[in-house]
Amino acid sequence: MTVFEDLESQVRSYCRNWPVVFDTAKGSRLTDVDGNSYLDFFGGAGALNYGHNPDVLKKPLIDYLTRDGITHGLDMYTTAKGDFLNTFQDKILAPRGLNYKVQFPGPTGANAVESALKLARKISGKEALINFTNAFHGMTLGALSVTGNSMKRGGAGIPLVHSTPMPFDNYFDGTMPDFLWFEKVLDDTGSSLNEPAAVIVETVQGEGGLNPARIEWLRGLRELCTRKGILMIVDDVQMGCGRTGPFFSFEIAGIEPDMVTISKSISGYGLPMALVLIKPEYDQWGPGEHNGTFRGNNPAFVTAAETIRHWWSDDAFEKDTLRKGEKIAEGLERIVGEHPDAGMFVKGRGMARGIQFAEEGLAEKAAAKAFEHRLLLETAGPKDEVLKLLAPLTTTDDEIDEGLAIIAESVRTVTGG
Amino acid sequence: MTVFEDLESQVRSYCRNWPVVFDTAKGSRLTDVDGNSYLDFFGGAGALNYGHNPDVLKKPLIDYLTRDGITHGLDMYTTAKGDFLNTFQDKILAPRGLNYKVQFPGPTGANAVESALKLARKISGKEALINFTNAFHGMTLGALSVTGNSMKRGGAGIPLVHSTPMPFDNYFDGTMPDFLWFEKVLDDTGSSLNEPAAVIVETVQGEGGLNPARIEWLRGLRELCTRKGILMIVDDVQMGCGRTGPFFSFEIAGIEPDMVTISKSISGYGLPMALVLIKPEYDQWGPGEHNGTFRGNNPAFVTAAETIRHWWSDDAFEKDTLRKGEKIAEGLERIVGEHPDAGMFVKGRGMARGIQFAEEGLAEKAAAKAFEHRLLLETAGPKDEVLKLLAPLTTTDDEIDEGLAIIAESVRTVTGG
Amino acid sequence: MTVFEDLESQVRSYCRNWPVVFDTAKGSRLTDVDGNSYLDFFGGAGALNYGHNPDVLKKPLIDYLTRDGITHGLDMYTTAKGDFLNTFQDKILAPRGLNYKVQFPGPTGANAVESALKLARKISGKEALINFTNAFHGMTLGALSVTGNSMKRGGAGIPLVHSTPMPFDNYFDGTMPDFLWFEKVLDDTGSSLNEPAAVIVETVQGEGGLNPARIEWLRGLRELCTRKGILMIVDDVQMGCGRTGPFFSFEIAGIEPDMVTISKSISGYGLPMALVLIKPEYDQWGPGEHNGTFRGNNPAFVTAAETIRHWWSDDAFEKDTLRKGEKIAEGLERIVGEHPDAGMFVKGRGMARGIQFAEEGLAEKAAAKAFEHRLLLETAGPKDEVLKLLAPLTTTDDEIDEGLAIIAESVRTVTGG
Amino acid sequence: MTVFEDLESQVRSYCRNWPVVFDTAKGSRLTDVDGNSYLDFFGGAGALNYGHNPDVLKKPLIDYLTRDGITHGLDMYTTAKGDFLNTFQDKILAPRGLNYKVQFPGPTGANAVESALKLARKISGKEALINFTNAFHGMTLGALSVTGNSMKRGGAGIPLVHSTPMPFDNYFDGTMPDFLWFEKVLDDTGSSLNEPAAVIVETVQGEGGLNPARIEWLRGLRELCTRKGILMIVDDVQMGCGRTGPFFSFEIAGIEPDMVTISKSISGYGLPMALVLIKPEYDQWGPGEHNGTFRGNNPAFVTAAETIRHWWSDDAFEKDTLRKGEKIAEGLERIVGEHPDAGMFVKGRGMARGIQFAEEGLAEKAAAKAFEHRLLLETAGPKDEVLKLLAPLTTTDDEIDEGLAIIAESVRTVTGG
Repeated sequence: MTVFEDLESQVRSYCRNWPVVFDTAKGSRLTDVDGNSYLDFFGGAGALNYGHNPDVLKKPLIDYLTRDGITHGLDMYTTAKGDFLNTFQDKILAPRGLNYKVQFPGPTGANAVESALKLARKISGKEALINFTNAFHGMTLGALSVTGNSMKRGGAGIPLVHSTPMPFDNYFDGTMPDFLWFEKVLDDTGSSLNEPAAVIVETVQGEGGLNPARIEWLRGLRELCTRKGILMIVDDVQMGCGRTGPFFSFEIAGIEPDMVTISKSISGYGLPMALVLIKPEYDQWGPGEHNGTFRGNNPAFVTAAETIRHWWSDDAFEKDTLRKGEKIAEGLERIVGEHPDAGMFVKGRGMARGIQFAEEGLAEKAAAKAFEHRLLLETAGPKDEVLKLLAPLTTTDDEIDEGLAIIAESVRTVTGG
Repeated sequence: MTVFEDLESQVRSYCRNWPVVFDTAKGSRLTDVDGNSYLDFFGGAGALNYGHNPDVLKKPLIDYLTRDGITHGLDMYTTAKGDFLNTFQDKILAPRGLNYKVQFPGPTGANAVESALKLARKISGKEALINFTNAFHGMTLGALSVTGNSMKRGGAGIPLVHSTPMPFDNYFDGTMPDFLWFEKVLDDTGSSLNEPAAVIVETVQGEGGLNPARIEWLRGLRELCTRKGILMIVDDVQMGCGRTGPFFSFEIAGIEPDMVTISKSISGYGLPMALVLIKPEYDQWGPGEHNGTFRGNNPAFVTAAETIRHWWSDDAFEKDTLRKGEKIAEGLERIVGEHPDAGMFVKGRGMARGIQFAEEGLAEKAAAKAFEHRLLLETAGPKDEVLKLLAPLTTTDDEIDEGLAIIAESVRTVTGG
Repeated sequence: MTVFEDLESQVRSYCRNWPVVFDTAKGSRLTDVDGNSYLDFFGGAGALNYGHNPDVLKKPLIDYLTRDGITHGLDMYTTAKGDFLNTFQDKILAPRGLNYKVQFPGPTGANAVESALKLARKISGKEALINFTNAFHGMTLGALSVTGNSMKRGGAGIPLVHSTPMPFDNYFDGTMPDFLWFEKVLDDTGSSLNEPAAVIVETVQGEGGLNPARIEWLRGLRELCTRKGILMIVDDVQMGCGRTGPFFSFEIAGIEPDMVTISKSISGYGLPMALVLIKPEYDQWGPGEHNGTFRGNNPAFVTAAETIRHWWSDDAFEKDTLRKGEKIAEGLERIVGEHPDAGMFVKGRGMARGIQFAEEGLAEKAAAKAFEHRLLLETAGPKDEVLKLLAPLTTTDDEIDEGLAIIAESVRTVTGG
Repeated sequence: MTVFEDLESQVRSYCRNWPVVFDTAKGSRLTDVDGNSYLDFFGGAGALNYGHNPDVLKKPLIDYLTRDGITHGLDMYTTAKGDFLNTFQDKILAPRGLNYKVQFPGPTGANAVESALKLARKISGKEALINFTNAFHGMTLGALSVTGNSMKRGGAGIPLVHSTPMPFDNYFDGTMPDFLWFEKVLDDTGSSLNEPAAVIVETVQGEGGLNPARIEWLRGLRELCTRKGILMIVDDVQMGCGRTGPFFSFEIAGIEPDMVTISKSISGYGLPMALVLIKPEYDQWGPGEHNGTFRGNNPAFVTAAETIRHWWSDDAFEKDTLRKGEKIAEGLERIVGEHPDAGMFVKGRGMARGIQFAEEGLAEKAAAKAFEHRLLLETAGPKDEVLKLLAPLTTTDDEIDEGLAIIAESVRTVTGG
């Protein structure tokens, strides 16, 4: 382990909480070099919705590599890309009545967000953006400028100035009408708000603390954006690909964003890949106006297409995710119920769930304690006050029970309860 | 092919020049769905220095996948990452007397550049940067702000304002002393130049038109930066990993940048991966201050480590690259020599070589003509005036001859000569 | 009049509403070149609180000019400046228990605002600012960036990005707790609000539509700023110098801003002059760090000192202003009462009063109609929906009655009532 | 004097070098409260070209005040403004064949510069600007962003980022062709220079150290701007109004800027006043799009009109200024000649002249020594290395001799020569 301490930058982070060297992984389990097995409720921060190294994808991936399929393709036409596009169109877009052009930006969520923001500004001729409190959209300058966390923003080294925050749903615990402030400053030509090109929004804020927006709020935002001529970008990097149940997290609201950013679990195998979905009328890019060396990561296209075929050909997977999500929520409610005076409560949607703690530091202690019991869990929220569960959607019921038991025990220990 | 036209965004670019569907690839050859074979002097824009799907890497990659090695690891400690770090330290850094901490930013060059710029600003407490004319560093907002191309800058949609351009080497064809303007405005407290945190520089500008900086110029820049307390970032995304001969392109100047960005060919297999190398005293990141979902693309670590072991355990590969580079240069000189009045000349270093055309549009026509002969080539420079050769370093002498013959013929056709 | 149309820029504005050539003025009356007399309820947009050319100031001004007192003094020590400083200290600051250093920026309100913002940023090391909806602080880039009006902001030609708007008092008609949003985003480290150096606020927004902030709101803002380490700048350019009754408009709240900007009526004679008042501990300017050619307009110092001696040696003037303000308010209420269904209402404080119209365009029509009756009046508010009265504080009761009668008649005419 | 130390901000500057209290002034003389007389070669930093309180202006000014002419008029039509406009048109613009619309911004040079920059951006739709090394244009944010001095820029508290510096004439002592760098980066679409809306330039840099641009350079700049579609703004705030001989400093080059900013000596009496001259086709302001409370300082219009009638009805004054300028230059050359090894040299144009010292601190010491002999002089240049003479243009030959003698003696003392 000293190799990491000696050679790797101080910026490393997760490894500080989990100071072991992992070697192999399968499904919802990782194994370290000493042969210890860990249950994974962290799920690659949302990049491993189908678990580690699923065999259903592994085989076509190895087959593709074996037959020397194109690995690196920039934006060349390839059979792997064609297959992905057709499958995505047939199994994802068409059945949902969605009509989007697909852009392959660089292979990370931040690349997708940067692309979407650039395009929104190009289309509208406006520079200003609206982000929401406690948003997380990435760490490159454009993406960081719409991200809430002050520590991460501080890393920019320049003022991040082109976006104005608006309150996310429930920011005032329901005491204020939705969009009261937002709509007022939009309508008021004396408000000093710079007219925005776009809003960028998560339907459930993951890094921000597992804050779900209500269906009505999402619909209200879509309606507001349409009425005011503001582009609506849904950042579905973490909450898309089935994390909350449906493939797109915004489906429950029946809305159509103008752009959607997708990454993390899109390849299904944890391989770098990202998409921007763009309503055809907004696909106003010039050729090469945005590019990137790894926008054609073809092995990822192979696994992505297979992922869609395997898990998204019908609605069984979505239903199962919703069922498991309820199961997890119930389990967490039981844990919270054990500590009625602790001010804890359960948050989230689908299989993005967590417990918010009232006492500062407790969520982190609980996560640390869980790791002692070989369960991987991270925390979220501006003060890391939320214990965050992003178990692979393929986690079995038994594994869920096993993890919940560890969490229950960990919470008991750290609360002294 | 209609699938791409129907479903993919207008932003697609290379495919417009090469309207075929590629299927497989090996070494310096791609094969399309109709079985046609293409010689690749494009090399994944520098991401395929070791050719397509090299068997020496393919085997360990498939082995790793087969044994369910960690695929997606964020910044967790893994055996694959440890092996890469040790190998990189032992075979690359130590033999060259270099002392760097390794940061794994997101897996693209732009992510690496964004990281380096953020860190430079954090370290120095200054916001301003210096970039060079015709630089290319990436398409995300921070990277784009230090990039020269006006079409690409225009895509930002906001003023890109925190960097000031300085003339790259030979910008005035040797008629001006190096750094005359740069040093003068630095020294003059009345110049209005904002004190820069860092310069970011390529040793050979690839996208900018294969412009090599002379050794003296690079040394002069290093010396100037040291003297003025400016951090020096070498962007070796395209020219590193042996493209110009040595592993790092700056080795020929005997300088040590304060930070180095690496990507493209670092995995050896065309898989997304990037590094920022940071002098230990500047590794002032806080934990998690910069992050990214795909910074732990472990299959890429596996092939990257094997790449280093295979090609960089001694200096044979470097020498061979230099030899082939000379061979290519000589071939191009012969082609240029056939058209003595056309104002063409040969540019570049190592195996990054090209021909600059005087007449606008000619380079693009030559590249198009070469494609008719099934040779992949791209153009570079602010007006696409340079025919750019980035053949894999593993391209055989016969293949080089074959490609040069096609180029010669193509140039003859388009010049009417 | 054609000279103006032929030679003067299109930017001219007031003259379009009052297309006559004015020649002389005294007290609350102007006379045009044809000998017509106009009653002035416009008051130089707040720069003529003591009326036109008051004899009590005219005599010392002419005496000063006659004896060749220093006219232009930059920031040299002069007897006129010394007299002003002593008088300002003895009659204004000391009796109110206020302790401020006096900066003479350039001679306009915008210069004062620019100085205050620069100093706030210097002191705090932060770049962000907070302004309020419908604020007006001036037209130079720094001042414009904290100004609300979108037409005026549009004139900047660059994104105005370093300030975030917060709701001014009563922005939601009392339905939201004061500072709910402001305090929440300050406290929330995930809100994405850049930590502000300062807030800048008017106690009554003049250009914004005569919106008075309640005493509790001003106190709450002072308390919030103190608690959060944010500097509080009160822009008293239009509402200071007795416009609302007391010398400083913030006196009614018993608060001490960290900086105060003063201009417009400070010279008493309509001469260009401005001040920044700075709490001694914040007077962290370096010598010459902010300067300006006309910061020593000594004739203005002469009239300013005399103004203070004459009108501010006791509280009689303040009381009379409050009395007249009530008289005007009552008169306006009567006018509004004549049109009970028109949705009009009376706004303002002290002798800054007006009528807000519900129907767009009506306030402008009423002002135009009043001009036909030779009463000068302007409009305010983001849609010019407020008929704004800024009569000189020295306007007699008879003149007030005369003006109110014209307004009543004008309103009747334009409302068809 | 303690009143100033006790009550005035630390920002005060000139008074630190001249710690006496001035009381009256006439022509080129000031008198302090103790009756001491000082010869003024400082000239209100260029605002007193006609000396202190010239009787020819004083009489109409007092007459105007006596008859209660409009003092404060915003942008209303007034007889005083009409008279000024007609006079300016007839005596200044028409005889020179110049065709400009006149804007009255706020009454300071910075207000004029801010206006011009805003208008240039509005006209062009571009945000970027070009300024020159060692430029000085003012202290408000927009003006400061095109100003060179790093101490003054540092006062902004935010990055000043929208302008790029280009070398002023002679920046490389004639070793580089004019505009080599500027034109190259304009032409090169890969240079990363943001396309500029305008250049702003002084013909002789005053604060920057009395650097005169050659006629050919000014013509070259005009030609370059025309060719590239860049607006040319000449900032004639300090060098206009006859300081270099002709009314406009750019007349010697026979060029017509697109906009001209005028302030300082335009009123003739040291009263705050400023103009922006705009080519008619560029007068694209909307009504009220830029405004300011003191843009109608009518007493200044009165003296300005009289100034033009008195000094600018023929070319006698211009010729006399040129003659005196030569006389001063010769005197300074003699002084420099006394110290052949000191590296001193004479700079400037017309009656803007000075001596540049090689040894740091010497100019300031010489100015301090001169003050001991009751001569007011300031320094200029990024390191205050230039002793700067801006004597009123009305200074008599005897006074010039007197001042030169003091300077000679002061230089002798401080150089030990």
